[in-house]
Amino acid sequence: MVSSMRAAPPSPHTALVRHPERGSYDRATICAILDEALVCHVGFVFDQKPFVLPTAYARIGDRLYLHGAAASRMLGALATGSPICVTVTLLDGLVLARSVFRHSMNYRSVVILGCARAVTDPVEKQKALEAIVEHVVPGRVADARPPSVQEAKATLVVSLPIDEASAKIRTGPPIDSEEDYALACWAGVIPLRLVADSPVTDPRLRPGTSLPPAVASYRRGGSLKRAP
Amino acid sequence: MVSSMRAAPPSPHTALVRHPERGSYDRATICAILDEALVCHVGFVFDQKPFVLPTAYARIGDRLYLHGAAASRMLGALATGSPICVTVTLLDGLVLARSVFRHSMNYRSVVILGCARAVTDPVEKQKALEAIVEHVVPGRVADARPPSVQEAKATLVVSLPIDEASAKIRTGPPIDSEEDYALACWAGVIPLRLVADSPVTDPRLRPGTSLPPAVASYRRGGSLKRAP
Repeated sequence: MVSSMRAAPPSPHTALVRHPERGSYDRATICAILDEALVCHVGFVFDQKPFVLPTAYARIGDRLYLHGAAASRMLGALATGSPICVTVTLLDGLVLARSVFRHSMNYRSVVILGCARAVTDPVEKQKALEAIVEHVVPGRVADARPPSVQEAKATLVVSLPIDEASAKIRTGPPIDSEEDYALACWAGVIPLRLVADSPVTDPRLRPGTSLPPAVASYRRGGSLKRAP
Repeated sequence: MVSSMRAAPPSPHTALVRHPERGSYDRATICAILDEALVCHVGFVFDQKPFVLPTAYARIGDRLYLHGAAASRMLGALATGSPICVTVTLLDGLVLARSVFRHSMNYRSVVILGCARAVTDPVEKQKALEAIVEHVVPGRVADARPPSVQEAKATLVVSLPIDEASAKIRTGPPIDSEEDYALACWAGVIPLRLVADSPVTDPRLRPGTSLPPAVASYRRGGSLKRAP
């Protein structure tokens, strides 16, 4: 699927200014990060000021889908086709250097720039809403009640092409100044990862309802494995 | 410390439009979220377009500090005093409702709006740089080499008042439509948390250097405990 997508060449806006060696415009890398993360941060301009809000999303092919209440300020702004920025960040570790200055973090992030459009086709909208739930818990859509016509109407879905996009990745140990390697100061990485704990059943669950496999087998972790 | 800070009344921009019942303008709540998270997403406008980049930060009292290379595009934009938005999000769980429509996430987020200013006072700058490292690993500054004059010059620090700020929190089980509670569909929450694994020592560590207590005892988790 990924190989059929066109490449995302650096644009003046996605060209990485700082640490270009950490950058990537490779589609497979960009998609793997988008598919592993759960929340994106959407930036939009309202009243000439920037706003950044966290929200769920899903990728279908070379488009990113966001959703929200039709009455929401953010979705309203997105649906007008104004420029937006969607950023996704996975935090993989704390990088402890010998010098305060060289402390860093290991991370994988994606920045997508572009203009969103409202999804009006009912079939595309239905697929997007299902993809957003499937993105979070694969297999969940088969277990839950599908959206009613009224629920679909109350939800605004917008899509953004994954076109002007870049990934930025830092991995590995700290990079200290050469003379600092002689210091008797511990240096290394504290790995971080998001884990899922055992599911907590809704107190109002209908008696006798069993835990579905999609939930029982839920684990975190994507295609790009972190260092142990 | 928190009690001495002034309250953050809702402004037209931070007033919560969607799910106002999840909102809070309480300083202690806002500070607890800022202190627990590791990365913020900074939104700024450049060339009339929004940009959102992840970065480290620290809170000192009622100000938020960000830093970066003096030559970076983001820091350059921030230091001009233009409006910015800093958003911090902690993801606490996946909320699986009986209907696709009511799926949600448990989270704690903070949005701060305002104009940053470059920190020029050398003492404030030094404190901010140390706070950013201490925010990530408390006690680390005492172990690492302090910034040289040249390193401090290469780093731009900006500060933002935690003034026009709001928190948004969702906790607890899914909220389904009343008629959906009769469905034989499992519902509940998959709790999520960020964990720190055992430190990975830099392969170039000076032999005989021991793991300092600040690293050996490092744990994730803040003042607002998540449900088990």
